[in-house]
Amino acid sequence: MSQATAIKVAPETAVSERDMANAIRALAMDSVQKANSGHPGMPMGMADVATVLFNRFITIDPSKPDWPDRDRFVLSAGHGSMLQYALHYLLGYPDMPISELQRFRQLGSRTAGHPEYGHALGIETTTGPLGQGISTAVGMALAERMLAARHGAGLVDHYTYVIAGDGCLQEGISHEAIDLAGHLKLNRLIVFWDDNSISIDGPTPLSTSMDQPERFAAAGWHVTPVDGHDMEAVAAAIEAARRSDRPSLIACKTVIGKGAPNLEGSEKTHGAPLGEAEIAATRENIGWAHAPFEVPDEILWSWREVAERGQLARLEWEQRLAASPRRAEFESAISSTLPAAVFEALAAFRKEHVEKATKVATRKASEMALGAINEATDMTVGGSADLTHSNLTITKGMTRIAPGDYAGRYIHYGIREHGMAAAMNGIALHGGFIPYGGTFLCFADYARGAMRLSALMGQRVIYVMTHDSIGLGEDGPTHQPIEHLAMLRATPNLNVFRPADIIETAECWELALRAKDRPSVLVLSRQNLPMLRQAHTDENLSARGGYVLRGPAGRRAVTLIATGSEVEVAVSAAERLHDQHGIAAAVVSMPSWELFEEQDPEYRRAVLGTAPRVAVEAAARLGWDRWIGDNGVFIGMTGFGASAPAPDLYRHFAITPEAVAEAARKLII
Amino acid sequence: MSQATAIKVAPETAVSERDMANAIRALAMDSVQKANSGHPGMPMGMADVATVLFNRFITIDPSKPDWPDRDRFVLSAGHGSMLQYALHYLLGYPDMPISELQRFRQLGSRTAGHPEYGHALGIETTTGPLGQGISTAVGMALAERMLAARHGAGLVDHYTYVIAGDGCLQEGISHEAIDLAGHLKLNRLIVFWDDNSISIDGPTPLSTSMDQPERFAAAGWHVTPVDGHDMEAVAAAIEAARRSDRPSLIACKTVIGKGAPNLEGSEKTHGAPLGEAEIAATRENIGWAHAPFEVPDEILWSWREVAERGQLARLEWEQRLAASPRRAEFESAISSTLPAAVFEALAAFRKEHVEKATKVATRKASEMALGAINEATDMTVGGSADLTHSNLTITKGMTRIAPGDYAGRYIHYGIREHGMAAAMNGIALHGGFIPYGGTFLCFADYARGAMRLSALMGQRVIYVMTHDSIGLGEDGPTHQPIEHLAMLRATPNLNVFRPADIIETAECWELALRAKDRPSVLVLSRQNLPMLRQAHTDENLSARGGYVLRGPAGRRAVTLIATGSEVEVAVSAAERLHDQHGIAAAVVSMPSWELFEEQDPEYRRAVLGTAPRVAVEAAARLGWDRWIGDNGVFIGMTGFGASAPAPDLYRHFAITPEAVAEAARKLII
Repeated sequence: MSQATAIKVAPETAVSERDMANAIRALAMDSVQKANSGHPGMPMGMADVATVLFNRFITIDPSKPDWPDRDRFVLSAGHGSMLQYALHYLLGYPDMPISELQRFRQLGSRTAGHPEYGHALGIETTTGPLGQGISTAVGMALAERMLAARHGAGLVDHYTYVIAGDGCLQEGISHEAIDLAGHLKLNRLIVFWDDNSISIDGPTPLSTSMDQPERFAAAGWHVTPVDGHDMEAVAAAIEAARRSDRPSLIACKTVIGKGAPNLEGSEKTHGAPLGEAEIAATRENIGWAHAPFEVPDEILWSWREVAERGQLARLEWEQRLAASPRRAEFESAISSTLPAAVFEALAAFRKEHVEKATKVATRKASEMALGAINEATDMTVGGSADLTHSNLTITKGMTRIAPGDYAGRYIHYGIREHGMAAAMNGIALHGGFIPYGGTFLCFADYARGAMRLSALMGQRVIYVMTHDSIGLGEDGPTHQPIEHLAMLRATPNLNVFRPADIIETAECWELALRAKDRPSVLVLSRQNLPMLRQAHTDENLSARGGYVLRGPAGRRAVTLIATGSEVEVAVSAAERLHDQHGIAAAVVSMPSWELFEEQDPEYRRAVLGTAPRVAVEAAARLGWDRWIGDNGVFIGMTGFGASAPAPDLYRHFAITPEAVAEAARKLII
Repeated sequence: MSQATAIKVAPETAVSERDMANAIRALAMDSVQKANSGHPGMPMGMADVATVLFNRFITIDPSKPDWPDRDRFVLSAGHGSMLQYALHYLLGYPDMPISELQRFRQLGSRTAGHPEYGHALGIETTTGPLGQGISTAVGMALAERMLAARHGAGLVDHYTYVIAGDGCLQEGISHEAIDLAGHLKLNRLIVFWDDNSISIDGPTPLSTSMDQPERFAAAGWHVTPVDGHDMEAVAAAIEAARRSDRPSLIACKTVIGKGAPNLEGSEKTHGAPLGEAEIAATRENIGWAHAPFEVPDEILWSWREVAERGQLARLEWEQRLAASPRRAEFESAISSTLPAAVFEALAAFRKEHVEKATKVATRKASEMALGAINEATDMTVGGSADLTHSNLTITKGMTRIAPGDYAGRYIHYGIREHGMAAAMNGIALHGGFIPYGGTFLCFADYARGAMRLSALMGQRVIYVMTHDSIGLGEDGPTHQPIEHLAMLRATPNLNVFRPADIIETAECWELALRAKDRPSVLVLSRQNLPMLRQAHTDENLSARGGYVLRGPAGRRAVTLIATGSEVEVAVSAAERLHDQHGIAAAVVSMPSWELFEEQDPEYRRAVLGTAPRVAVEAAARLGWDRWIGDNGVFIGMTGFGASAPAPDLYRHFAITPEAVAEAARKLII
């Protein structure tokens, strides 16, 4: 399969770590040159650090890349993807033969422009948008500690290593991640800063004067500055980091494009091929006499020894697992399969609250549903970006994660929406937990970068986003989402749920938990909403995305479509139409556009009907034309909100049963 | 108008600064109680600091709140809005009588839940989303230095003061802002940190261990920790800060809800009324014997003296301006009116490039148009989030802003999209400049929080967002926008321009510059695009939002609608339909949905036509149904992109003339 299998005999020539590093340099510059696209500077600059890290420390097994107790490696500076692909080839990952490096950045290759989770074995997370890798790694390092707290060091005992660049550390998200990691004393997290003093525009002093070591120290990190080309110094720093009781930054002073005699140290090596002449000069300069994409067997052999060391560790771990009394629990956690009790509890919950006709805000309904979920499984890990008692994300008996104490299951993420979203990605990617976290829907804005990666990576991360419209009232337009539903609905592979009442809330929670390869956003009201179902059904009606909540006895004259808190408005409008005008209106609740879109066209046509349609949602119109059609009417927001009590705002913006009924009446005249 | 005019005689009683501060406390707790909503804790905790700042230092004139050389005050912790409203009443802002405080958070009042720019005089920026205020203030402080560099200290010589809370400093955007301000040595920026150790979830040690003074020091700030209730210490710290050659943090140790005997120091004072009993106890505790909303004349008088000092300073400044040889230039800059030469240059540019049929990427066309604009005016201030030579935002002769040197007009914002957007808001709000800044369209995600505020505040901030689709190629799905156009188009009061060629690019730049009360996003291609106009028109065709670019001689059989780089695809499809099938297709270019939406319905109907429609855009479908109608077809992206050369991707995702022509053909059969 890969070239790995071709080496049968141990070579006799002594191979230095520098030779091993130069293999990375050569593969990186050759691949970028062949693609005529990519970033050689970073892989060449960090080749020495990466070689020491992998050769002496990292425990991974390319023959079983998803072994749970492996070390995690995150290339936060994702543009340097050739560093990772070169390593994967050298280490013998079975899906990374040399031919993949030769197809760097080409359609259908495993060697995408940036490392993409799921595109090649051993890529732990998708990186490229700067700062995401280091922030996701915080979630991984936290998950490691939490899993260790549950199952013991015999089964869970690994490190998370990160290579981050200047870009990662300039992005705001890094602040949120660093503060959280330092606070929680995530001592299994070790970050290498590729301190090459170069960014795309030129030398970093063009735009920053930050003393990064001091900054990390302020956040409670253990910091070691080293010469990133002094391999013994790097090794010593890693050893010190592994002994530390805090997360560690190893600030590696490096030369970007190291080895290229005329270009090293310049931004010109960052994002463009070196060119044939400079590549030839580099070969000469570093003493690499081999043809493009050729790595001598003895160097490959040295790299493969790293993989063998990892394989041995993995086999030992499997023996420990086989002998462990916790084996069943551990395997169940890692498999991410929820117990049936969760779904039984939710079904009972729905039945109970249809009977009781419970009227609560959907954020409260979410808390109540979570109470049932969290009692039936301990895989769920909750949190909030400092809005716990507004988002209602904590349930009875949940204890908090604290510095050095990882036995709990509730995370106070702080006022850090972006960091929370990235950390949840990391927790989900690590395995063993289903993370959910809360903020106001409006602050999805702050979390966008990481939420997009949840979707791109297909991770089961659940966003609990409350205060979902002008219904939040007095806090005003800065806190009232308008365009956010459109923003989320337009995002591929993301479930957006806006339930109308306590029953739909429980249904949407069930759907979010069942969506193993998709993140979900639960969009929830601040204000109380009546229970709208007329009878309990075993079927989860929200699973169809949209359904007829109220159908008139005979033929409909008009269809009213709504989501969330506006379904109550639509129901009330339908009653008004019937009582005052004798008009038969159907009400369609559409908690999830994505799931409705996935239904067969016949079902969709039956639900939408052939009568004229009016949609009502306290948000922007964008997207609604798909459901109301050419002659439909949309009742919603046309600009930003305002600061006032919620009922005043609904009246002010004319999102009322009266307005909906009037629009419907005019439409069918 | 306001109660200000009622005080005619100087009181004889001595008034202490503590009394002045207690007036803030009383007004804050009474207003929140009356509204039964709001945040009393912060105004009460920071009343002493605010009193010292305003009473002894700040130079503002409530009778002319927009006087250009006033100090700027930014309440970054915007939830403490009652601090600002109380101050405005006490200082005698003419639009802030006591009755406005009594209508706190009510519909139509000036006293919105969070300070809203434009809702009341003297509010310099909208805050509430945490971290925005401090980051916007960085732009203000930079604009002050830049304007001073151009016009001299006689006309421009003021400070920017910020009150920030724990939330502001935990948000990632604060990192970007602090790093940039420290780097640029913005010594007129003075930030008070309300260090009350409380956030919504509880004590801040629940989620942070950050040493904030050390963190700011690492970023090159001057830092002074003080007891925030020791007024002399606060004053000394402000004096030291004003002397510093760096931006300053004054870390004010405070007690949240200070004065409330049973609740002070607790998160319970943060976001809820204190309650009648605690308010009575607070009155007793702080020795405030006055009825709700009543402030004794002698205390009001003391506050009004602050306003008088400001008025005097403003009058002196007006004399200096009158006598200044730079008066005309200064007034022209402050008025924000662009010279006619800018628009003449753009008209000539369009004529020239229609004649030359210039084929360039629209990012390149933008650079060329900017060359003409920046030569005709120096009001434009450019920059990029470290993608200068990708966004093509710098033009000939632009020199950079550097630490201590503010004479240039190009800002290397660093890898800080969010910080850049907020800083641009601050530059625009400050006045004297029109800021534009670049990043990749995909990283609008990172800037969302501040972009929304550009729109909410109606500021002329111009976002240059290049690499606008899968057309960016090899960097792959993390860098390829899909949902971003929908996200931006759904945002109220934001112009989104996606020009198809060099001519539309120049037209869109003109429209962006003319939109004085709206931000604009220019969405630009990485790849080359042909010039599509068949003749020069004096009229700016993009001003209509959409127009018929190619109309068949006779009746249309089908209408193809596209934006940006896909207009070329549509034109090619139309030719194919004509040549191979004898089908008459019109091509509509729609560079701005917002402007098209604003046209009268007749114009829109004429452009869209009655023939079946096919839309093509290399992005998500969401929103397009409005333009294609019930029976239309959309050709675009249904999921995330991929890493490969751009032409391969267009073929792979079937966004081609062949696919469009085939869809059109099927539609009209």
